[in-house]
Amino acid sequence: MKSELLTLLMEAAPNYISGQAICEKLNCSRTAVWKQIAQLKEEGYEIKAVRNKGYLLAHSSVPFSGHAVKAKLNCRILPYQIIFSSSLPSTQTKALRLATDGAEEGTVVIADQQTGGRGRLGRAWSTARGTGLAMSLLLKPDIPIHQAPQITLVAAVSIIKVLRKIGFDAKIKWPNDILIDNRKVCGILTEMQADPDRIQTIILGIGLNVNEQEFPEAIRNSAVSLSLINKEELSRTDIAAGLLNEFETDYQLFLQKSFSAFKSRWEEYSATLNRNVSVLHNNQMIYGQAVSISNEGVLKIVDESGKEHNIYSGDIEIH
Amino acid sequence: MKSELLTLLMEAAPNYISGQAICEKLNCSRTAVWKQIAQLKEEGYEIKAVRNKGYLLAHSSVPFSGHAVKAKLNCRILPYQIIFSSSLPSTQTKALRLATDGAEEGTVVIADQQTGGRGRLGRAWSTARGTGLAMSLLLKPDIPIHQAPQITLVAAVSIIKVLRKIGFDAKIKWPNDILIDNRKVCGILTEMQADPDRIQTIILGIGLNVNEQEFPEAIRNSAVSLSLINKEELSRTDIAAGLLNEFETDYQLFLQKSFSAFKSRWEEYSATLNRNVSVLHNNQMIYGQAVSISNEGVLKIVDESGKEHNIYSGDIEIH
Repeated sequence: MKSELLTLLMEAAPNYISGQAICEKLNCSRTAVWKQIAQLKEEGYEIKAVRNKGYLLAHSSVPFSGHAVKAKLNCRILPYQIIFSSSLPSTQTKALRLATDGAEEGTVVIADQQTGGRGRLGRAWSTARGTGLAMSLLLKPDIPIHQAPQITLVAAVSIIKVLRKIGFDAKIKWPNDILIDNRKVCGILTEMQADPDRIQTIILGIGLNVNEQEFPEAIRNSAVSLSLINKEELSRTDIAAGLLNEFETDYQLFLQKSFSAFKSRWEEYSATLNRNVSVLHNNQMIYGQAVSISNEGVLKIVDESGKEHNIYSGDIEIH
Repeated sequence: MKSELLTLLMEAAPNYISGQAICEKLNCSRTAVWKQIAQLKEEGYEIKAVRNKGYLLAHSSVPFSGHAVKAKLNCRILPYQIIFSSSLPSTQTKALRLATDGAEEGTVVIADQQTGGRGRLGRAWSTARGTGLAMSLLLKPDIPIHQAPQITLVAAVSIIKVLRKIGFDAKIKWPNDILIDNRKVCGILTEMQADPDRIQTIILGIGLNVNEQEFPEAIRNSAVSLSLINKEELSRTDIAAGLLNEFETDYQLFLQKSFSAFKSRWEEYSATLNRNVSVLHNNQMIYGQAVSISNEGVLKIVDESGKEHNIYSGDIEIH
């Protein structure tokens, strides 16, 4: 009931909601409401109670939590179930573990702090407490395994849409990075459990730099956070919920029409197309121009001699 | 030390091994040996102790266990680590869980009883206590994901080699079944954890019917056990160790040369090639003849109109 109560308070804010209204909506007694309000206050929520007006939640007081994210979801199709931890080695590993234990599609693991986060090819990705967004989403799409990389591209489009709505000029660096001002603000990590002929589970990991004020020396020039750009703190609750809301719609479209339905949006958001790039491909460094992306998400590079290369995966350097 | 002691006793049998020899090989005291022997006896091993001769293990008394299998391994490359349970829902799920927790290549899960075993496409596969062999092997091959199905075909070759050595005329039904007299004696289940562009972990599951005396009504005509064929009980310890020994060598060859190195052996063992078969392919039933397998493990079927179909996965029916 606490989660539903929090939702009502959030929906009502910045207005008061009466105790009577809460009782009716949650089908419970005044005393029960009063007890839950007291518990929420203990957890750090600032809630004003005024006779004849009711309860008012001070929105700025809402800590980042599973309840808070859940209250902002307007999803109707994917039954998101949020599992929030204050600290985890890796949301990705936790989600994989849950998948092995039979967790359902729509299970979302979020951690306030990530101590051993992973990026592509086993690279490290850290999320300091109280700053970044570390989220892993469990999906069970009924698609052949060669379509798995497309999920990364679709998620990139969803993320860009959310970031642009709140005013950031973000772009996609193929295949799995989001850049602002040519610096990395977000990485996507797609992993799967599969039979050789069909996907069982996809774990879609998103690591987004939100309120970080500084980065380790090694990545100081190549990484950026949203807060470093617009000089104010952002709500990770709003961003997490925004991403889940946006992705839900995009995921349904993807299942119906595959990546081809996202191709033109992806091209619009791309930081890679029509740029000079280099990429290590079959142990050979290719220098050329990224000219197009296929309906299957394969990047085409034309090298200096005019030869075409289809790149299925790899790290692109943009020149 | 118990495992090493058991290995020494097994290697010596049917001869005695002296307490002195054991002390020297294990670098321990007579008293320590005596204590360990007492423990093994408590666990059900029949061990004779005769003054001036030493200790003799009655081989027939060795229960199916991780120690017993380990003692029969002669592997030198893959550092097999055996995790034995008297009962598990599924060795495959247990191995996946271990993989998520960072288990190494060569981890082997064996269960005496499997209560919720899985086959391909989520089908059930049960292993009754004390009869069958349920084993899952964790591998970390550095190969692209499209090569994953080849591991199933290589494992099938290893299994056939072991079964033929002990006198069974077993054949491979593409892609993952082993048949004797056209009845299923063994199923292989290959699952993986992967990034979209590389395999992290393969879990190779083998379910072999060894000493089953009867099967559920639904599969009574299509399933068989080794014991039902040769009318005597077989040692699951010997078979499990034999499989691991054989597969170790084959796996190394596979990593160097891919499935192509196994193609002619596979053809020799095949129950599928040159047979009339049907298969559901892209929601359409194809009737035709299985004419060949490619170096990549893809089955080619020529249908009644002479059209060729490349089958990457699916259930074949042999007519």
